[in-house]
Amino acid sequence: MVIEKGERLILLTNDDGLYAAGLKTLLEVMEEFGKVVLVSTMESQSGMSQALTVKTPLRVKLLEENEKHRIYTCNGTPTDSIKIAVNQLLDRHPDWVVSGINHGANASVSVLYSGTMAAAIEGCLYGISSVGFSLNSFSSTADFSVCRTYIRLIMEKMALEPLPQGVCLNVNIPAVEKKDIKGIKVCRQSKGNWKEEFEKRKDPMGKTYYWLTGSFQNHEPEAKDTDEWALANNYVSVVPVSVDMTAHWFIDKLKEKLGK
Amino acid sequence: MVIEKGERLILLTNDDGLYAAGLKTLLEVMEEFGKVVLVSTMESQSGMSQALTVKTPLRVKLLEENEKHRIYTCNGTPTDSIKIAVNQLLDRHPDWVVSGINHGANASVSVLYSGTMAAAIEGCLYGISSVGFSLNSFSSTADFSVCRTYIRLIMEKMALEPLPQGVCLNVNIPAVEKKDIKGIKVCRQSKGNWKEEFEKRKDPMGKTYYWLTGSFQNHEPEAKDTDEWALANNYVSVVPVSVDMTAHWFIDKLKEKLGK
Repeated sequence: MVIEKGERLILLTNDDGLYAAGLKTLLEVMEEFGKVVLVSTMESQSGMSQALTVKTPLRVKLLEENEKHRIYTCNGTPTDSIKIAVNQLLDRHPDWVVSGINHGANASVSVLYSGTMAAAIEGCLYGISSVGFSLNSFSSTADFSVCRTYIRLIMEKMALEPLPQGVCLNVNIPAVEKKDIKGIKVCRQSKGNWKEEFEKRKDPMGKTYYWLTGSFQNHEPEAKDTDEWALANNYVSVVPVSVDMTAHWFIDKLKEKLGK
Repeated sequence: MVIEKGERLILLTNDDGLYAAGLKTLLEVMEEFGKVVLVSTMESQSGMSQALTVKTPLRVKLLEENEKHRIYTCNGTPTDSIKIAVNQLLDRHPDWVVSGINHGANASVSVLYSGTMAAAIEGCLYGISSVGFSLNSFSSTADFSVCRTYIRLIMEKMALEPLPQGVCLNVNIPAVEKKDIKGIKVCRQSKGNWKEEFEKRKDPMGKTYYWLTGSFQNHEPEAKDTDEWALANNYVSVVPVSVDMTAHWFIDKLKEKLGK
């Protein structure tokens, strides 16, 4: 693959592993926009958040190359994939970092746990326009084709003007037929949390172990400006995500509290 | 350990493992404030961010119990430790989640990668007043005693009034002598990123592997209201961290951009 001068270079990853259907769809759409370097793990890395691999070495393998893309596997996390691509595999910074399409929504506080969004956040930290895409379905037979229209629409806007420094996009797409999607809605992260329901079991040796399961609790189901509301009402939700986690509104109050 | 009605219950964890000196110091200081349940991993979980363990089961073991504390080990991440404690090990929500003291600073964007801060963020998502503490030294012989005064001071304020919903504290303490610390400074997360310098090596079979290393790039070394500046100038930095990652200031501009 030759990347011509002035040609768009797109770095693509996900957290569901190299053979995930969502990744294939996103690769195909991205090839309409430029040359694609894909770096992904073989296995799923769901729920890995912004985790880094610091205790074991990373390995990277070039699996496939043609005129449109290069595909690498990496044995680390989604964040590692972005770091090693930017620093070792690419001759220059990519124009975009694109991640997904995740099997399952990453709305509300899931942005904090998501490997898909961590990759977009990592791209953003390098000053690259970065977007994470998720489909609101955990089904292994989920139909990602509905995503194509909205990915195109959003990336066409990105092509006109990059995102500002420190902001990336968290895009969640309803898993319904195309005709039922009402459009795009820019929104804020819904307030909520995951309520765990650990499943307690005994192993064959009689020792206790737990499986982490949980259900999402929406703290503001009535609010219409949130990503959860948008998704539940068949809109594609787009949340601008800030890498600055400071609660700026609380700084003055905290100064009073701590007397500083 | 009996937790009397009305007595303060403190959940403690870290990401450096059960035998880290910083955890011992924090346990001792927390015992001045209430009964402590400590849940930690045996080994270090640095750089694990908000990662969850979803592919393997979790196991928990009660290691030690006395009148002041209960100590458990958990084989998961710092976030898992908080989740399993809140949902399986404790009869009621703790009054505080406290994490650390981390070996090494977690200022600026390190909040995104830090297992220590992830535990505090997890506590915050449950609506619990949560604080992560870090000492600005990676040395295995780092002296954590200087932290005691400032941990006490901050937690005494927490005791008067809980933190607001959705906000936890990221506290970084300079690794200097007590007499050289100028005091506490409430600040914002500094703009910056980690620049990777992957170390490329060959294994005995001649295959390439990489070690992730890096150095922090401060994008605004002159700004005096940031955590990086505070630490570099011998102040204890306190950043209020928001679990809402929405870039609220960009919502209207993004609506214009996407036409929604």
